[in-house]
Amino acid sequence: MALADLSRCAIHTMTLKPWSLEQTIAGLGRVGVPGITVWRQHLAPYGAEAAGRMLRASGLTVTALCRGGFFPAIDPAGRDAALADNRKAIDEAATIGAPMVVLVCGAVPGMPLSDARRQIQDAIATLEPYAKANRVKLAIEPLHPMYAADRSAINTLAQARAICETVASPWVGIAADVYHIWWDPDAESELARAGAGGWLAGFHVCDWRVETRDLLNDRGLMGEGCIDIPRLRNAAERAGFSGFNEVESFSTTRWAGEQDAWLDTIVEAYRRHT
Amino acid sequence: MALADLSRCAIHTMTLKPWSLEQTIAGLGRVGVPGITVWRQHLAPYGAEAAGRMLRASGLTVTALCRGGFFPAIDPAGRDAALADNRKAIDEAATIGAPMVVLVCGAVPGMPLSDARRQIQDAIATLEPYAKANRVKLAIEPLHPMYAADRSAINTLAQARAICETVASPWVGIAADVYHIWWDPDAESELARAGAGGWLAGFHVCDWRVETRDLLNDRGLMGEGCIDIPRLRNAAERAGFSGFNEVESFSTTRWAGEQDAWLDTIVEAYRRHT
Repeated sequence: MALADLSRCAIHTMTLKPWSLEQTIAGLGRVGVPGITVWRQHLAPYGAEAAGRMLRASGLTVTALCRGGFFPAIDPAGRDAALADNRKAIDEAATIGAPMVVLVCGAVPGMPLSDARRQIQDAIATLEPYAKANRVKLAIEPLHPMYAADRSAINTLAQARAICETVASPWVGIAADVYHIWWDPDAESELARAGAGGWLAGFHVCDWRVETRDLLNDRGLMGEGCIDIPRLRNAAERAGFSGFNEVESFSTTRWAGEQDAWLDTIVEAYRRHT
Repeated sequence: MALADLSRCAIHTMTLKPWSLEQTIAGLGRVGVPGITVWRQHLAPYGAEAAGRMLRASGLTVTALCRGGFFPAIDPAGRDAALADNRKAIDEAATIGAPMVVLVCGAVPGMPLSDARRQIQDAIATLEPYAKANRVKLAIEPLHPMYAADRSAINTLAQARAICETVASPWVGIAADVYHIWWDPDAESELARAGAGGWLAGFHVCDWRVETRDLLNDRGLMGEGCIDIPRLRNAAERAGFSGFNEVESFSTTRWAGEQDAWLDTIVEAYRRHT
């Protein structure tokens, strides 16, 4: 059963990549979408202070800041730079009123995944006090295994949950994206465990196109692919999740078109297939 | 530590896709590769009987027949047709002297993965007596999760192992391909379990390119990507595996070039990076 109303709908600024933050705020206002997830590249032209004022004036709920992470590095200087950048992301989130920073945890081609995974856990543990002090949650987003080489060594909900168990803080949680988790035979049981642990912080929707033409920028809109989104959303809700369903899609094809029409298409797909 | 010699090297006819079976047999003879995995499309022009005579005359070891599987279907007629085709594959394997049929288990876009997985297990259990009677093993190849929509709903070694445990026959095993399993945090422990259970029947090598430009036909040759192949091969060997390392690569780029030179490149990469 899909959701008929938009009360829990949020859209990532990256889904409307060609638009400025100002344009996206206006667009979401026009169609009545109440939530926005802000990507740092859309925040950068304004700075966090000015962007925060715009967002508060809009009445939109800021669901999250995307994205922190990219922790593993070959040398300590690289890891320190990543920590510094993540502290900056936490600052920005606090400034714009985002309750969490979504973490794409990172991977270095050729570095053993076990090393990358250890560095990721260490970095999150290191950042936790800073996140807590700023009242911003760190939301680990497991990425599809096809991104293990260069984007994230955290590829399943189970891995994200293991980090949450180890760091054991209310300021570290999980962002579950149907695109990344739908194939996982343990997806539903792990959503239940994430909910039971109090870790389920975010829920992202889009779809897996058959055929997928590009590993990164060919995501489908809800209903265009093979993911049973209501089943996964229901699993999250049974686990206690009551937050926004964030529409996050990267699509070269869609970005090339007219964004107002694309936004109308997104809202229609959300109503029918989420 | 890479393998210096070719005594356990096999090459899939698909790796040299433009060549006929006859050309591939001649090519492998020229470079001293002792093993060949035969794809059905390369066998078809000759028929199994004639292909079997060619292979026996060549002195090559036939490591496997690729591929059976594609079990799930919307209706019973589709599932019956898949079973019939797999019996034919078992016949062909027996005729050419291949000890196993590699299974790409199948998936139907939009069918719940849990249904597809049940149908796959049922089909393998149904085929087991026929495989046993023909002394041909059914080797379940878990495919990378990026193929879950349309090629295989079996995406991890753990899932393949669960089927082996359930069907519980020496004629059902696992073919592990580094391309499909390298990202899995449980890859090494599952290789150990597969070995302990007596299920580890095949081991395939190639590499994961960074960036990967196409989901299907952009595999790298060993050493061209980010997979630590010796680590996974050693894990298989510690688990008791002593079979061939089968080079299986799909690459539009490589198929477009001269195949004799490509074969020389494969042999060099095998010596250095396997």
